[in-house]
Amino acid sequence: MPLTRWKILIEYKGTRYAGWQRQEDGIATVQGAIERAIHQFCGQFCTLHVAGRTDAGVHAEGQVAHFDLDYGDRPLSAHQIRAAINFFLKNDDITILHAEAAAADFHARFHATRKIYQYRILTRASPPACLRDLRLHVHYDLDIQSMQRGARHLLGHHDFTSFRARECQAKSPFRTLDRADIISQDHGAAGREIIFEFEGKSFLHHQVRNMVGSLLLVGRGKWAADDIKIALAAKDRTQSGPTAPPHGLFLVQIFYGHF
Amino acid sequence: MPLTRWKILIEYKGTRYAGWQRQEDGIATVQGAIERAIHQFCGQFCTLHVAGRTDAGVHAEGQVAHFDLDYGDRPLSAHQIRAAINFFLKNDDITILHAEAAAADFHARFHATRKIYQYRILTRASPPACLRDLRLHVHYDLDIQSMQRGARHLLGHHDFTSFRARECQAKSPFRTLDRADIISQDHGAAGREIIFEFEGKSFLHHQVRNMVGSLLLVGRGKWAADDIKIALAAKDRTQSGPTAPPHGLFLVQIFYGHF
Repeated sequence: MPLTRWKILIEYKGTRYAGWQRQEDGIATVQGAIERAIHQFCGQFCTLHVAGRTDAGVHAEGQVAHFDLDYGDRPLSAHQIRAAINFFLKNDDITILHAEAAAADFHARFHATRKIYQYRILTRASPPACLRDLRLHVHYDLDIQSMQRGARHLLGHHDFTSFRARECQAKSPFRTLDRADIISQDHGAAGREIIFEFEGKSFLHHQVRNMVGSLLLVGRGKWAADDIKIALAAKDRTQSGPTAPPHGLFLVQIFYGHF
Repeated sequence: MPLTRWKILIEYKGTRYAGWQRQEDGIATVQGAIERAIHQFCGQFCTLHVAGRTDAGVHAEGQVAHFDLDYGDRPLSAHQIRAAINFFLKNDDITILHAEAAAADFHARFHATRKIYQYRILTRASPPACLRDLRLHVHYDLDIQSMQRGARHLLGHHDFTSFRARECQAKSPFRTLDRADIISQDHGAAGREIIFEFEGKSFLHHQVRNMVGSLLLVGRGKWAADDIKIALAAKDRTQSGPTAPPHGLFLVQIFYGHF
């Protein structure tokens, strides 16, 4: 059976989906929708392996997955693969941005060397109309400089137990956070957009949303910037802030080494 | 009856609405939704007067309207007006960005001195997932410089009959276009965003969408830049390009003189 391993770059709006991971019939998931589209165009049942599973409501602009396709006696081009899957995704909020044939041993999750997540917030009095499901709406002002000072405590190699979901299945609570930038853009009457950008090799379950939840406490003055350091040192989930909601989170980019 | 005239600044995503203008019951419109929200919070039936009516599927980031409210014996603050309307719009894709008490003779339409519209396009192979209803998707490359040369022919005072909807009710086909900028932003794997920005005192029905439809013919090489000049001079709707779809259009800002 002549197999091609395909690597695909995926954008999706997570609002309508119960997360990435396939579930029982009748529950819409991103994985389920793409696997169904592949089956519709070529009749094959493939299993997608993803770089970073996302929770319900979380979006992706640069998710990566791989799957194996039996090309039979007429090999398909990367362009055909992308266009065919997109055709059957036309009623979904999912699009394949790019497809390419990968090495037979390429693995979307195991070979990822870096990931970038963004958490996007709109601060203004009124809720968003156009970007309703794509920004966390916060009706109070946030102190950017305090949040930036707080975020610095998270940089580097730490035990992130305080920022890890209780149900996280990772063996180790240690992770290395390489970058935690906070950018603020003023859009006048349309409000202020605040973007948190986090970069690291990998993240624990809910780590980004939990870090943002605590940094928001700093931003609104309920915590001092150094309270982030105290929360981290506590290695106790109950000592940090709430989990920020899913709809502000975007998986932006995944890097691979030599693949 | 002590009346206050309120001026409101409105953002909406037009996808779910059959345009601005109120229609019979059961048809969702932006005007109908806001008038219903006003009635829900204070029991009064007000009529909204809008600066620029928009068609089905067209969005606004800075629409302006006015209405008169009997404040009885307890005047409401602008903050209360905004928050109360937004509360009853919480299930709509409409939000009041700002409210202020206006002069008794202020008129949202008659006193508007300038308007800015944007038409937003995403050019890339794959359709948008996150911004599906908020960008026109174009899968071919567009020649920005040719479109900029073409757009220059539209600047100034002209008979815009060639770019006016057949059902346009304006008495005169003459309008003055003060600005027609075309900006291109490269977002890498996420594609290229092309934004047309038009500014003028007022526009004819479908004028922006019809100008964009012809400029897209220039951008993809089907028309030369100077064909815009020929189409304009023809004063004949059949001599210009198709009407660009509604979902790329945004009413961005409305200016008022001394009000």
